[in-house]
Amino acid sequence: MSSTPDSAVRTFISAHTPAFLDDLQEWLRIPSVSAAPERAPDVRASADWLVGKLTETGFPTAEVWETDGLPAVYAEWPSDDPGAPTVLVYGHHDVQPAAVEDGWHSDPFEPEIRDGRMYARGAADDKGQVYFHTLGLRAHLHATGRSAPAVNLKLLVEGEEESGSPNFAALVRRNADRLACDTVIVSDTGMWAKDTPTVCTGMRGLAECQVTLYGPAQDIHSGSFGGAVPNPATEAARLAAALHDDERRVAIPGFYDGVVELTGRERELFAQLPFDEEQWLATAHSRAALGEAGYSTLERIWARPTAEVNGIGGGYQGPGGKTIVPSSAFLKLSFRLVAGQDVDGVQKTVGDWVAGRLPAGIRHEITWTGATRPCLTPLDDPALQALTRAMGRAFGTDVRYTREGGSGPAADLQDVLGAPVLFLGISVPSDGWHAPNEKVELDLLTKGVETAAHLWGELASGTTGGAQ
Amino acid sequence: MSSTPDSAVRTFISAHTPAFLDDLQEWLRIPSVSAAPERAPDVRASADWLVGKLTETGFPTAEVWETDGLPAVYAEWPSDDPGAPTVLVYGHHDVQPAAVEDGWHSDPFEPEIRDGRMYARGAADDKGQVYFHTLGLRAHLHATGRSAPAVNLKLLVEGEEESGSPNFAALVRRNADRLACDTVIVSDTGMWAKDTPTVCTGMRGLAECQVTLYGPAQDIHSGSFGGAVPNPATEAARLAAALHDDERRVAIPGFYDGVVELTGRERELFAQLPFDEEQWLATAHSRAALGEAGYSTLERIWARPTAEVNGIGGGYQGPGGKTIVPSSAFLKLSFRLVAGQDVDGVQKTVGDWVAGRLPAGIRHEITWTGATRPCLTPLDDPALQALTRAMGRAFGTDVRYTREGGSGPAADLQDVLGAPVLFLGISVPSDGWHAPNEKVELDLLTKGVETAAHLWGELASGTTGGAQ
Repeated sequence: MSSTPDSAVRTFISAHTPAFLDDLQEWLRIPSVSAAPERAPDVRASADWLVGKLTETGFPTAEVWETDGLPAVYAEWPSDDPGAPTVLVYGHHDVQPAAVEDGWHSDPFEPEIRDGRMYARGAADDKGQVYFHTLGLRAHLHATGRSAPAVNLKLLVEGEEESGSPNFAALVRRNADRLACDTVIVSDTGMWAKDTPTVCTGMRGLAECQVTLYGPAQDIHSGSFGGAVPNPATEAARLAAALHDDERRVAIPGFYDGVVELTGRERELFAQLPFDEEQWLATAHSRAALGEAGYSTLERIWARPTAEVNGIGGGYQGPGGKTIVPSSAFLKLSFRLVAGQDVDGVQKTVGDWVAGRLPAGIRHEITWTGATRPCLTPLDDPALQALTRAMGRAFGTDVRYTREGGSGPAADLQDVLGAPVLFLGISVPSDGWHAPNEKVELDLLTKGVETAAHLWGELASGTTGGAQ
Repeated sequence: MSSTPDSAVRTFISAHTPAFLDDLQEWLRIPSVSAAPERAPDVRASADWLVGKLTETGFPTAEVWETDGLPAVYAEWPSDDPGAPTVLVYGHHDVQPAAVEDGWHSDPFEPEIRDGRMYARGAADDKGQVYFHTLGLRAHLHATGRSAPAVNLKLLVEGEEESGSPNFAALVRRNADRLACDTVIVSDTGMWAKDTPTVCTGMRGLAECQVTLYGPAQDIHSGSFGGAVPNPATEAARLAAALHDDERRVAIPGFYDGVVELTGRERELFAQLPFDEEQWLATAHSRAALGEAGYSTLERIWARPTAEVNGIGGGYQGPGGKTIVPSSAFLKLSFRLVAGQDVDGVQKTVGDWVAGRLPAGIRHEITWTGATRPCLTPLDDPALQALTRAMGRAFGTDVRYTREGGSGPAADLQDVLGAPVLFLGISVPSDGWHAPNEKVELDLLTKGVETAAHLWGELASGTTGGAQ
């Protein structure tokens, strides 16, 4: 299968953009706020609307998938090419809450186009980035003359992403057979900047715990007993302090075991990104950068595992002082993980380390809560290369690589389906996700449509199927 | 002036004990709870009652001293010996709250004698230990045939000790001329055990502060920024952890400068006390001892300065986890000080140390609150020796030495009046200060009367005056 002619794609998209934008605005008018119980009918209406549009687009299968919470949408369009790879596109049709009073310049659920941007809740996160696949797919079919996509195409659009995806992992597990694929494309992210198209190649994983330390059976007088018995607040501090050495490396023995190090090529590519540390510090509301010695800020955030104190507490919390040795103290810790680290292994490493550092007289408990595996696609992965080519053709410029420091439900897809996850996003940092005046840049939305139009051919020519 | 004949003292005290106990019970019936605003008239009635009894005892001056809060009592009886030293006895006439519902076996304000003990709120803390001076003084006069005490005797009995003595330092400063003395006797403490009479030779001082650390201007996402900016909770932990080295010595440079070390004799005397570490750990509600290497538990509590984390806090405090880098964190620290340490010096030492340990991007504030100087009387101090002899005659056994790990208003007296502070107490740990069923052992109360009867002669013969 050869690539689709780019000019034919552009002409088709131009012709159909007005109707495409009308449709998108219609969808954005449905206030599918998953966090608001009274909006549940709107979330369902949004799912129904999308099923209708996917059917119109030509998907032979398009249906609402029920969950224990709000409904998802699933659609499927098999390729007519028997050797075609299978691709699952992930997105979501629910949105964050929004109200004019929060500082919107126009009704968040009445889309308005101003200065080449469409303002509406969900414009970028994530309806715009889901919906560009419909026109992209039609352009792909038109330009290639096909009656079915070059890949076996599946779409899963959940309805609870903005509420923490409480039922998503179960939905994926329950439908693992139907969702089986060679590649997952997450269509719910962003890129570096308007003039710097990028592909995200991975997200960090996460392991979170609370460590509670118990000392005296009750708070005791620090004059009568202080300095002669162990103090759990002091021990909590000593644990938290020992998480890092003086070079801010994580000092837990074994923590870095197996970590996939950055390659020279990756470091070089990161370093080429137009990164402005002053600007970044302003975004971080911070006055200085500090982190693991030997790595740049971007490397620290994207590619290095961390140990972070999210909360610490113990003893007297009120105004003034109180001369006690407190009876207990706690640490809320989170560890960001990178490829090569295993959640279970890190939990055991940390647990053993904590247990081995406490003096006699201090009892401890560790409770592990959130856990998400890291995901990372190597730069030479054929699917990643296909996505890079598709995006390069749409943008007409070099595509660079980023990673995401946070952790997300994409890893659920990777875990259950055993397929690598790629991230296709055309949103930019100024788009105002979760904030007032969310918008999508219309020219970038068009680039998304074009990328989607090129992607299936690139994937079919650059990779081989196996899941179906 | 020779010592009073012990047998004459005993005979006199025996004869007058029933009336003395009747009087004490009358005083204990006045619920002079300083913490309860509705008991203010009772605190005043208690002061008036005491003025009456001190006048009856023969004090030429006995008066109520007003404060911005509740009234104190002052009395004065000059010696007829022109070279006599001047002694100020300190105690308090207010009591802790008490209610039968708290677990009392009898009404806390209706004293009851059972099994050789008088049960009532204030029996030991502190009315019993103030009032024994009246009968002790009368026995002194009777046995020596004097018409005035062998020392210039002053009594200051405050009415807000159980509420933190908020107006005491000001009262002492305002009346420093009238309170001038060579020696202060604090009559509001205890001894080691019923069969081990002891004299306390010092109290530790105290410097308390809150250190607040500021990082990002708001809580920020630990996935997007964690590991690349300084975290104030981590820095608070690193500060708290750095307070001590691995041998649990305070690791702040200069902290121990000037500390008066224990002498070999003091350590020997401490070691001779019948100390049961298991029993002590039970009292401390703790499972193990831990403290500065090279010192015993008693030495750590009584004679070594400490750094204690009384409270620590920052970041997420709720259930589960929250992946943030918190914007601020705090430490509530207290430092117990010993002789040779200066509150101002320690504040500066700690302040400089904190400022020098924080990375760029962390701003800090230190607020110093409570500050109390340490006090310590050397074992060879003549007044201390006089008190030891008086107590030895009363108890008929060796008197040993203790110290007090806590910090108290005694240091205000020492500071303002420039006189050494001695501690005369006959209460035992089982007396239930601040607890239900507070009591005083009647035979120990009698030993207190006897000690007071011997003390003025011993002080007059063993020391010389100078303040008057």
